[in-house]
Amino acid sequence: MSVTPPFNPPTRILMGPGPSGANPRVLRAMTAPILGHLDPEFLRIMDECRTMLRRVMRTENDVTLATPGTGTSGMEAAVMNLVEPGDRVVVGICGYFGERIAQMAERAGGEVTRVQAAWGSPVDPEAVRAVVRSAGNVKLIGVVHAETSTGVQNKIEPFSAIAKESGALLLVDCVTSLGGVAVEADAWGADAVYSGTQKCLSAPPGVAPITLSSKAFDAVKARETPCNTWYLDMALLEAYWDGRRQYHHTAPISMIYALHQALALVLEEGLENRWARHERNGRALQSGLEAMGLVLHADEGYRLPVLTTVRIPDGVNDAEVRGALLKRNGIEIGGGLGDLRAKVWRIGLMGESSTPGNVLLSLSSLGKILREQGFKADTNAAIDAASERLGGA
Amino acid sequence: MSVTPPFNPPTRILMGPGPSGANPRVLRAMTAPILGHLDPEFLRIMDECRTMLRRVMRTENDVTLATPGTGTSGMEAAVMNLVEPGDRVVVGICGYFGERIAQMAERAGGEVTRVQAAWGSPVDPEAVRAVVRSAGNVKLIGVVHAETSTGVQNKIEPFSAIAKESGALLLVDCVTSLGGVAVEADAWGADAVYSGTQKCLSAPPGVAPITLSSKAFDAVKARETPCNTWYLDMALLEAYWDGRRQYHHTAPISMIYALHQALALVLEEGLENRWARHERNGRALQSGLEAMGLVLHADEGYRLPVLTTVRIPDGVNDAEVRGALLKRNGIEIGGGLGDLRAKVWRIGLMGESSTPGNVLLSLSSLGKILREQGFKADTNAAIDAASERLGGA
Repeated sequence: MSVTPPFNPPTRILMGPGPSGANPRVLRAMTAPILGHLDPEFLRIMDECRTMLRRVMRTENDVTLATPGTGTSGMEAAVMNLVEPGDRVVVGICGYFGERIAQMAERAGGEVTRVQAAWGSPVDPEAVRAVVRSAGNVKLIGVVHAETSTGVQNKIEPFSAIAKESGALLLVDCVTSLGGVAVEADAWGADAVYSGTQKCLSAPPGVAPITLSSKAFDAVKARETPCNTWYLDMALLEAYWDGRRQYHHTAPISMIYALHQALALVLEEGLENRWARHERNGRALQSGLEAMGLVLHADEGYRLPVLTTVRIPDGVNDAEVRGALLKRNGIEIGGGLGDLRAKVWRIGLMGESSTPGNVLLSLSSLGKILREQGFKADTNAAIDAASERLGGA
Repeated sequence: MSVTPPFNPPTRILMGPGPSGANPRVLRAMTAPILGHLDPEFLRIMDECRTMLRRVMRTENDVTLATPGTGTSGMEAAVMNLVEPGDRVVVGICGYFGERIAQMAERAGGEVTRVQAAWGSPVDPEAVRAVVRSAGNVKLIGVVHAETSTGVQNKIEPFSAIAKESGALLLVDCVTSLGGVAVEADAWGADAVYSGTQKCLSAPPGVAPITLSSKAFDAVKARETPCNTWYLDMALLEAYWDGRRQYHHTAPISMIYALHQALALVLEEGLENRWARHERNGRALQSGLEAMGLVLHADEGYRLPVLTTVRIPDGVNDAEVRGALLKRNGIEIGGGLGDLRAKVWRIGLMGESSTPGNVLLSLSSLGKILREQGFKADTNAAIDAASERLGGA
């Protein structure tokens, strides 16, 4: 008997809420020789990441980097750096991740007001505006662009207007949108935008792109109390990422390699082409699911193309269906979070996983299993509807 | 012209303070297909990591996991979870990383007393005992096992005794020792031990092993105020790592793969064999450096085998020597941190980088460059002395 367990992870088709599948070029990049975190060749790779991140996030912000942790580390860096004890914070919440922003802001000592929307609807900008006006002196407004728990896409422009008229900073969570849905950090006038690598950028999870406007970074530098976190202190991180190269942490070298190649793939495909691909495949899946006889959960007009929530029909067993998809077809889809547990499935089409083949495979696999569960899924109609949206015959 | 920059990191011989070189099996592991963070096969890999981590850290603590960030995230998790506002904390400091613990404890709201030692000497346990006694009601005593900034190894047993007699929790930073120097979490009676992957475990940086005693985890659960950090909240992390599998963050899948194979390599070599290898190679390097005519910086009897600090001779240019080593021989060694900047070099022999070949190559390369700088380095004597310690002819 070997002293250690074998290591042979199986191949999956990743169509959950993330991680998505990675391009082989990204995985290969991680086998490149490890460099020291102050090696001139590594610093060049960091600079190239910074430049490519600015292009992918559509920003000219100086402070654009990758925090050394998964997507949630980007959220924590944004919230903990921008919120000081006593600061007024308004968070528009329409799902799990908006609530997480609020919880972090409370840990940072903020006075947090939550503006709630139903899980499946977008945040109402007018409700946020009313709260911001009545509270007065709001430091930060937070909103999630792509709510991974509900499949809802919030339109950001109305929140930009509220931030502008009130003087508040605008934080936008783009974990699930960056690289798949248009993120326009500068055009939005957003002050803090962060993401993860394992969604539409299609790299393994492990680093989090983040960008801060000069107004936001000025607020970080003007803090009266030190940031709650040393590890994710943006002033310390920026002193390493900018030309000063002050030692802070040992950069996650191989993950930065993966990010470098993931960003290169995005730019080589072209941002607009990539958004169009995600849009086409996502709408095809949604048409197929509806044609099959299922009901989409998110409000029409606010449905993310990259993550679709679909209601689980009465009498169908959530765990059995997801288990059969995984076991028979190697397909991972996600269950519902929080209030949507056992009520919806979350089907992702992100990055490398966003392909016409995955649309058709998931529809046909799901249709078969649903019929076994007693639900009259019409796979013929589903495939026809999806194919039409895909431009196929 | 290509739209994106080329990606071809060069091969280095990593003999700085970390990262160290990685075994090809560890790098290959990261190219395995990405699994979802709740996939049964991934959960099995996590469980195996947990079991192997306990063996490598010599503990039976339930709460043993890897935080989703580099070594510093382990420090931040330990400090931020164990220190509440107003808690009395005593940190024994003999270099940069002890000071970092103190700074984090202050950000957590702790009332911190620093017990300082010269950079090159160990922390004096009697000085710590006196401060702990006079302060009274000390919640946490912090000390660094292997001080990466000075090459000093603190003996932990005397601090264990102080923690025991005072009832304080004992935090031990093992970032640079785990897998290279004996770490005995349970035998020490340590309450929090953390490390990094990129030193003697010889995986890429990106996750941080950590273990908490039941006494420490009870303290976490009994907190009156929430932990400063949501991302590194040990109660939330443990709820994902233990059988509950509560969603917290998307685990850094590929880094967990790397950790799995790095731990397997440690256990297949055998912990005692591995400690002996690091001891033999480190003492050989130190003998060689002294025979060459250089002066070791750390106090005799407290020198780490895995990281050696050696004083830069008068008249020798720090940057030129390190630049020539990198450019000519592909060897990375580290410069001094803080007060030791331009005064010492830091030469690591960690994990895969700890080989007899690297001892001899670094001595001969350094000797040649020092002679060009006007320092009469005796390479003959250096190689003879090192070879004798290596057991060579």
